[in-house]
Amino acid sequence: MKAHRGESVVRDVLDAVREEIAKVGFSAMRIENVALRADVAKTTIYRRWPKKEDLLFELLQSMTSGTGEIPESGTLRADLLAIARHLRCVMTSIEGQAVARVLMAERSDPEVQRAIAHIRAEKMVVPMQIVERARERGEIGKAVDADLLLSTLAGAIHHRVFVRSEELSDPYLESLVDLLLSGVAPRA
Amino acid sequence: MKAHRGESVVRDVLDAVREEIAKVGFSAMRIENVALRADVAKTTIYRRWPKKEDLLFELLQSMTSGTGEIPESGTLRADLLAIARHLRCVMTSIEGQAVARVLMAERSDPEVQRAIAHIRAEKMVVPMQIVERARERGEIGKAVDADLLLSTLAGAIHHRVFVRSEELSDPYLESLVDLLLSGVAPRA
Repeated sequence: MKAHRGESVVRDVLDAVREEIAKVGFSAMRIENVALRADVAKTTIYRRWPKKEDLLFELLQSMTSGTGEIPESGTLRADLLAIARHLRCVMTSIEGQAVARVLMAERSDPEVQRAIAHIRAEKMVVPMQIVERARERGEIGKAVDADLLLSTLAGAIHHRVFVRSEELSDPYLESLVDLLLSGVAPRA
Repeated sequence: MKAHRGESVVRDVLDAVREEIAKVGFSAMRIENVALRADVAKTTIYRRWPKKEDLLFELLQSMTSGTGEIPESGTLRADLLAIARHLRCVMTSIEGQAVARVLMAERSDPEVQRAIAHIRAEKMVVPMQIVERARERGEIGKAVDADLLLSTLAGAIHHRVFVRSEELSDPYLESLVDLLLSGVAPRA
């Protein structure tokens, strides 16, 4: 077994979790195999991540890092574009794709459901604040549902990547943001 | 082997394809096992569906039937709601869910890709006509991309079912359609 410490253990274990999920799926993933692949003791894993879903949550967190650093530009359009580009980056990474496909197939597993709900709640905090500040600036209507706006943005990008397998060009992301800002009905 | 004819063969074979996909996935699905499960001769299947992807396409077609019958109400809002309800019906059926999850996991298989692209092109014809007629009535702007509108609608519903596992209530579908019609920016 390698001499591991701190950060390095986390990285090696998460790499092993990602590879095991891509290979056998989360439901069939066994801690023994993660430990073997990461070359750490099983007890090292259990001490830090008592439940299997803790491992999945930490993996998802590492894969979606950067949400906290979405800069605020001062206009909703530029902020939504930054969120859209961040989502594109997460969803089109090779590791992201492999894990996302497996998790979609295993979405009925309660541990997978909890880990996804948990990561989503955490990752929504910054975007929700961005939308609320746009509301304070009068850029969106009082009655607009921020969660509906953000989940429609995420859903469209997700669908394009995972169902249509189509490219997410900058012009596409701009059209999508403009659709959500202005709608299709002609404005006077 | 049962005495099968016409419609009944198609139904039994498609049931068997759906069950096999739910059980082992499309890539691992073997025509022998479909034939066994449907209780028909392998040659019967090959004669009608020369390629495995023909079977998948016909299954997807049977699961998404009804798109051709979306009634036109005369207003874009009501038409989009009818499309949204049809999508909800397809995506939340138990068979639809099982097959969709497997296909998302197997999205990199070229046969799966072709069958999905094929079914999507076919199922988009009626909704695209509906949007074009709304454009003729002046209900949407000249520059609006009909495909962007429809794929954002489908993407939001898909995401809510397959990623968020949340209910698709009528009020949610109405808010979604209103978001796409009017956008979030306040109208004068």
